[in-house]
Amino acid sequence: MDYETPQFFRVMQYASRADRDVVDMVSGNPDWEPPEALRDGLRTYAQADSAEFQYPPSVGLTALREEIASRRGVERKQVLVTNGAGEANHLAMSVGFEQFSGSEILLVDPVYPYYVGRAQLLGADVSFVSADGDGQLSTDSVDDAMSDETAVMVVNTPNNPLGVTYPKSTMAELVQLAESHDALLVSDEVYDHFDYAGNFASALHVDSPNRVVTNSFSKSMAITGWRVGYAIFPDREGTTGDLFDRARTQHMLTNVTGSRPAQQAVYDALRETPPEYYQGVRDRLVERIETFTTALDAAGAAYTKPEGSFYVLARFPEFPGTMDNVETLIDEAGVAGMPGEAFGESRSDWIRFALVTPRVETAAERLTTYFE
Amino acid sequence: MDYETPQFFRVMQYASRADRDVVDMVSGNPDWEPPEALRDGLRTYAQADSAEFQYPPSVGLTALREEIASRRGVERKQVLVTNGAGEANHLAMSVGFEQFSGSEILLVDPVYPYYVGRAQLLGADVSFVSADGDGQLSTDSVDDAMSDETAVMVVNTPNNPLGVTYPKSTMAELVQLAESHDALLVSDEVYDHFDYAGNFASALHVDSPNRVVTNSFSKSMAITGWRVGYAIFPDREGTTGDLFDRARTQHMLTNVTGSRPAQQAVYDALRETPPEYYQGVRDRLVERIETFTTALDAAGAAYTKPEGSFYVLARFPEFPGTMDNVETLIDEAGVAGMPGEAFGESRSDWIRFALVTPRVETAAERLTTYFE
Repeated sequence: MDYETPQFFRVMQYASRADRDVVDMVSGNPDWEPPEALRDGLRTYAQADSAEFQYPPSVGLTALREEIASRRGVERKQVLVTNGAGEANHLAMSVGFEQFSGSEILLVDPVYPYYVGRAQLLGADVSFVSADGDGQLSTDSVDDAMSDETAVMVVNTPNNPLGVTYPKSTMAELVQLAESHDALLVSDEVYDHFDYAGNFASALHVDSPNRVVTNSFSKSMAITGWRVGYAIFPDREGTTGDLFDRARTQHMLTNVTGSRPAQQAVYDALRETPPEYYQGVRDRLVERIETFTTALDAAGAAYTKPEGSFYVLARFPEFPGTMDNVETLIDEAGVAGMPGEAFGESRSDWIRFALVTPRVETAAERLTTYFE
Repeated sequence: MDYETPQFFRVMQYASRADRDVVDMVSGNPDWEPPEALRDGLRTYAQADSAEFQYPPSVGLTALREEIASRRGVERKQVLVTNGAGEANHLAMSVGFEQFSGSEILLVDPVYPYYVGRAQLLGADVSFVSADGDGQLSTDSVDDAMSDETAVMVVNTPNNPLGVTYPKSTMAELVQLAESHDALLVSDEVYDHFDYAGNFASALHVDSPNRVVTNSFSKSMAITGWRVGYAIFPDREGTTGDLFDRARTQHMLTNVTGSRPAQQAVYDALRETPPEYYQGVRDRLVERIETFTTALDAAGAAYTKPEGSFYVLARFPEFPGTMDNVETLIDEAGVAGMPGEAFGESRSDWIRFALVTPRVETAAERLTTYFE
């Protein structure tokens, strides 16, 4: 898997050059409005005293850390505000790989490709455990895949690209496995607001010095370009000392701090956005999932109906999700998805569709017609 | 030197607990207004279509890269927009240390402490070359200090803490030395707008595959908390391949991209801010330098009058710049500076004063009275 020339860009380019209208179901950028309080927050900040334009604390604005801590039921000192979940995951993987013994980082296949790139950047050996047929993660398989060499394991729930969420029992067992194998579990929970079935369980529910939870406001506030995320570190030292301190030092030396305008507006939006905003987004996505999976049924495709995140992986009969077939679907059906091989081996003949476009209905009609 | 518990915080804390009014000349945060176009840019962006809130290109907004490239006389493909000069310096040092042979990073003493921390984070051996008595850098000394083990050298012009700028001949010779020692010269030029004597010369004037120039808008636009900086890479490959590509990959995997609201507002301000804004800031600082150095003269202090940046290093007669004496000066004179030892060995009995406070005149009066 080559994260440097992502297939993402290849598909997007192919679609943009197509001789017809194409529905983009490739990118994961929310297509809905951010909270109004976010726009208000940024406007207000633009008029702030210029002293508020200077360095915030390296670990993030104090009020934002307080707000995150209080919402997540942790102490402020556990919260490191980062340049999006990207940096949060990088830091968590980096300090985990440095502090826990072993040369390996364990990932779940199908995988979010950036995890692979980050593990390689750290010089780690990358190993994989395959998701089950229903997309869930068998902790027996994880136990088998872990060894003395496993320093870090990264999971993503709700999951991109599978659309599953792991139940509380899985999360608890994953933390236990991390403890028994002297490894760090990094639980990336950026889709936590996109939990349609109410099954989502954060790794935070299990207190342990062997787990870090990462998150961001990129998806929940529809601001992937603003770069405000965070990592929550254990509230007590394990055998490896203080992970927070090590991550903080690395963050300070590489980024100094995150961007203050974005942090301030996110803080305002966190405080002032009513639950109805998030529910409205979920309602819209549930509708899209219904529309799209009805079309998949009509096309005779196999798929798992998403209970979280906003992606659907599908396999069409006699139409494996190769790059060739993805290009055929662009040209002949006018729908662009991602070839499964972009996410590893276990779903290489599937195609991933992102439901972050207002044109899901059009895409559904086109697929139904194409495959009928 | 311990970058993890910077003396900076120790001095700030001591000053804040003092039983009297203290003029803060410790921190390097500009105390003047940002360009009006910057505030306008952010306000306008707050109302943008939500599509503009999503991921910008990982390397930075295209228009911002174009604008930077055109102002610096380079190609857009050489410009990587970063999370402030902090990330730009980290990336440049990181790819240089990875790609050029040798285990050492060479720094100038007195040194900006973050460079030391960054070199240590990369696992490099840190070596130093001392500035001359007048604060300038002798390229003979640099030549002596460089060896086969030197992978990277970092310089800062205009210089913090010395207030000097290196002439064009020094910059050209530094690039040549980097070439002849198969090393990378990283020239951090964040104070380029604070050039009072007109002596500043960018390392960009010398075309070479062995130099990277870093910069940011933190100081020039008085927005240290916004985190918009950049690195300019060579426009041709040297013996070590494409440095830009390697830095871009690392940037993408660690940060994904920089924060878009800040990038957009900086772009607007870059285009719309008249030269008078920058000249007004310089005029104000020249006045402060006059006021402050007149007081230093009255106090019988040794110092080099800054021709760039906004710091003055001074040595008072029989009052070496130890932490003890810095605390004495806080308590007895009501002026807080930084002990010289924070910047290495060569100026350890000096004190650094930052001129980014409207109370320079008060500080000057207090020092004159205290030392008379």
